[in-house]
Amino acid sequence: MEGIEGSGKSTQIRRLAARLNRCGIPVEVSKEPGGTPLCKEIRRLLLEPHASGETWSPKAELLLFYADRAQHLAEFVAPALEEGRMVLLDRFDDSTRAYQGAQGIGDAVLDRIGEVVLGRLKPNLTILLDMDPTASLDRVEQRNAATSGFRETRFDEEHLDFHRRVRSRFLAIAQKEPQRVVVVPAQDGPDAVEEAIWNRLAPLLRTAGLPVE
Amino acid sequence: MEGIEGSGKSTQIRRLAARLNRCGIPVEVSKEPGGTPLCKEIRRLLLEPHASGETWSPKAELLLFYADRAQHLAEFVAPALEEGRMVLLDRFDDSTRAYQGAQGIGDAVLDRIGEVVLGRLKPNLTILLDMDPTASLDRVEQRNAATSGFRETRFDEEHLDFHRRVRSRFLAIAQKEPQRVVVVPAQDGPDAVEEAIWNRLAPLLRTAGLPVE
Repeated sequence: MEGIEGSGKSTQIRRLAARLNRCGIPVEVSKEPGGTPLCKEIRRLLLEPHASGETWSPKAELLLFYADRAQHLAEFVAPALEEGRMVLLDRFDDSTRAYQGAQGIGDAVLDRIGEVVLGRLKPNLTILLDMDPTASLDRVEQRNAATSGFRETRFDEEHLDFHRRVRSRFLAIAQKEPQRVVVVPAQDGPDAVEEAIWNRLAPLLRTAGLPVE
Repeated sequence: MEGIEGSGKSTQIRRLAARLNRCGIPVEVSKEPGGTPLCKEIRRLLLEPHASGETWSPKAELLLFYADRAQHLAEFVAPALEEGRMVLLDRFDDSTRAYQGAQGIGDAVLDRIGEVVLGRLKPNLTILLDMDPTASLDRVEQRNAATSGFRETRFDEEHLDFHRRVRSRFLAIAQKEPQRVVVVPAQDGPDAVEEAIWNRLAPLLRTAGLPVE
């Protein structure tokens, strides 16, 4: 499940997992960064400001995201897949390509490191929740105001322009890999988005031989 | 300054810096991992066992070492070099190639990520302190026993065989790049090793136009 902040990834991944569970399909839900105890340490380093005031260089940040991904794949995702369970991830490699790319990391570097880290572990299907960042960041603001006014991640503070670049990078990936990436408009309410996701997904799951209603 | 544990890197880098300072050559000394406040956080994640019992997968470990390096280069090494100062490092890329290589990471992966991280920032000169691991690990044991019996890094607990592989990988790098890597036998006392390093280094520094005695 991919998309800019406030596009509803966490809500929709939870709803999708519940729906798959109701069909009797065993599902694991996880997220990046932070999918294992050690990955949570990397997540903390990436998202919390450091007491020293030092910030990560773009390349160091990229490598930390990939260290998180390598660990998560080795310790959590690969073992679950080997045991035949479906894995739903809240953000994966497209997020790195969209965000770090929008921060100036070139595609050749992303290709090179991505290939080392992912190997054959590519997603079968990616749902891109797409919406205008003005509206999605507004959701984030409201959510943060509701939870004691604390901004959840430092990404919230980056500019709207940056999020517009991230959105176009996500859409460019979807255009390049239409078989893998399903674009779902995400500006409507959660029930409507859930239905839209399911309408796109159910036929694919049935084709894959899964027992969906 | 490269070499297996207990080969005297820290001692010799300190002595070399003092000697260069006495010649009026401004010098910065740093180490990897852990050369900046954020790098120290990565160092801690790499070297301290985690409360969860989880350990790093080989690829995640590699990417953390390179995240440390990217940050150190961007925040510390590159600025110092741009201001015309000489930088002495206690471990750099050869350590990653020797240790992570000995843990099974292939040369193609090391080349690929190393190139992304180092770019043009390659060492002008590398001193490889070479000695048999049986003797060097004995030094480490003695040092640890002297400081409350606590083992300094988890690498100390890896087997002698592993350190033999690391040593041969260091020597293979030196053989492949004889112009860059000077091999200095390190089994003698610190004064003798300091002299050996200086005898190899002084002519090179003079050729580079530096005011050494």
